[in-house]
Amino acid sequence: MSNTPRELLKAEAIAAMEAQVRPHTLNPNAVRLRKSLGDLTGLTQLGAHLITLMPGHESSEYHRHLYEEEFVYVLSGVGEALIDEQIHAVGPGDFLGFPRGGVAHVLKNTGSEPLTMLVAGQRLEQDICDYPHVKKRLYIYGDRGDIVDFEHIRSDD
Amino acid sequence: MSNTPRELLKAEAIAAMEAQVRPHTLNPNAVRLRKSLGDLTGLTQLGAHLITLMPGHESSEYHRHLYEEEFVYVLSGVGEALIDEQIHAVGPGDFLGFPRGGVAHVLKNTGSEPLTMLVAGQRLEQDICDYPHVKKRLYIYGDRGDIVDFEHIRSDD
Amino acid sequence: MSNTPRELLKAEAIAAMEAQVRPHTLNPNAVRLRKSLGDLTGLTQLGAHLITLMPGHESSEYHRHLYEEEFVYVLSGVGEALIDEQIHAVGPGDFLGFPRGGVAHVLKNTGSEPLTMLVAGQRLEQDICDYPHVKKRLYIYGDRGDIVDFEHIRSDD
Amino acid sequence: MSNTPRELLKAEAIAAMEAQVRPHTLNPNAVRLRKSLGDLTGLTQLGAHLITLMPGHESSEYHRHLYEEEFVYVLSGVGEALIDEQIHAVGPGDFLGFPRGGVAHVLKNTGSEPLTMLVAGQRLEQDICDYPHVKKRLYIYGDRGDIVDFEHIRSDD
Repeated sequence: MSNTPRELLKAEAIAAMEAQVRPHTLNPNAVRLRKSLGDLTGLTQLGAHLITLMPGHESSEYHRHLYEEEFVYVLSGVGEALIDEQIHAVGPGDFLGFPRGGVAHVLKNTGSEPLTMLVAGQRLEQDICDYPHVKKRLYIYGDRGDIVDFEHIRSDD
Repeated sequence: MSNTPRELLKAEAIAAMEAQVRPHTLNPNAVRLRKSLGDLTGLTQLGAHLITLMPGHESSEYHRHLYEEEFVYVLSGVGEALIDEQIHAVGPGDFLGFPRGGVAHVLKNTGSEPLTMLVAGQRLEQDICDYPHVKKRLYIYGDRGDIVDFEHIRSDD
Repeated sequence: MSNTPRELLKAEAIAAMEAQVRPHTLNPNAVRLRKSLGDLTGLTQLGAHLITLMPGHESSEYHRHLYEEEFVYVLSGVGEALIDEQIHAVGPGDFLGFPRGGVAHVLKNTGSEPLTMLVAGQRLEQDICDYPHVKKRLYIYGDRGDIVDFEHIRSDD
Repeated sequence: MSNTPRELLKAEAIAAMEAQVRPHTLNPNAVRLRKSLGDLTGLTQLGAHLITLMPGHESSEYHRHLYEEEFVYVLSGVGEALIDEQIHAVGPGDFLGFPRGGVAHVLKNTGSEPLTMLVAGQRLEQDICDYPHVKKRLYIYGDRGDIVDFEHIRSDD
């Protein structure tokens, strides 16, 4: 495989990679094991990650992006998706798409095996992400982010 | 499943969908069977498609995008990727990422079973796509496209 | 002038327009008399305004945009520009350009005649604007804005 | 004026600048004398130029941008604007705004004195500019441009 180009990651090479351990800032129960396949192939405008959640773990803090779109394709394991406050079972072959300005969501591994998913999304220069359960808004700009409690935001009208 | 939200497509619902038959304008041998999972969940800024190529078929005309990024995750079947004029075997679990301004590429089903992939990419307002084997450039803007032979393009310098 | 197209605003028609009175949310001393020439000609991606400040009035609250660029061309009257905490005299024919992520600034009419300027800038879907003197940050998205005191912003690192 | 910041260009400094001589690629009669005030103050997302046309000269080849917006504010001199094939007189204090996807236009100095204008516009990563009189389309991307005759463009439908 010495001459495999940067654009191609073979399944066995992906399996051999060590995953990054990525806990979520706002949810200690969201420890994501992440292989950033997109970054490894040189993508800069899209994020594309192989994410594994161990049993009991969540994909993020329950959230919605006002601008960036993302989707999830479940590869193995089972879990639950909380979407707009409703719980739905998810398993292999299920696809979840979250349009800009759409409803809040989070996934949880409710099974006894790892839950593995391909997770992809836009990388815009700016975005706003709401976390309604913890009542916080994250303003994203470049590689920085500002977190503000809902109660400290005043509408400029 | 009556209360499955738009954001979630269950594997069995995806399996039951009829695929769109999408031949490529510049390559009659690129007949793609497409289920546009992203569109069905409401995504507008990202394309995310389940693509099946029958044996012998190609994913597109050999091409490179100057702006839009795309990636492919192989789900089942085997084939070959032509990347920057080099052939590489591809199979289940392989990931291919194509950065903006990167090298040309195309996939082909060289096996005897269908080749199924998750294919995703940006949807920018404008893009330029080169087809070096047929010596054509496609200028994409909104939902329109202009095709021009390389020989008819003059650099404005 | 009945057949003057929308793209052209004649000087006499501009002179005859009634200006909008636009006080700044964060600075009651910034009452701008505005003729939105760009809007009248159909521009949507750029703002271009003829702004008049009466004696003693300011152009805005002292501010800097992290993303949007703007510029000012002084047509008549005299005043002072506060740029990065330094005061500079301004008068007819002076040009001021404020790059994205640049220093804070504001103009003031310090003369006895109206100060009239052509003021133009980008209209991005998102922006962030800082008001260092009143220690507030404005997050702009679409036609909405969130104002937050500096002390209530926590960096997400 | 030793401590005048980059953001401020004083009228006398602008007057003392040597203008760049900028003939248009497609129109030898469009020799523009240009002082790029925006660039000098560090703007990168907007172009803002003081343009002088000597008698008989035009501002460009008759054109329309499909994406970028631009505007013109006439400072001195007189001329004619050709807008959507109609001629209109222009003079000091007139404003012309050209929205994205709008009609074609060009200005000409038809007087005996220099015609001086402030000309500003967006700088998008991509754009398309049509020159209907010479039947050419210019595809702009980054700092490059491709010129193609209308007759060599085939719609991709």
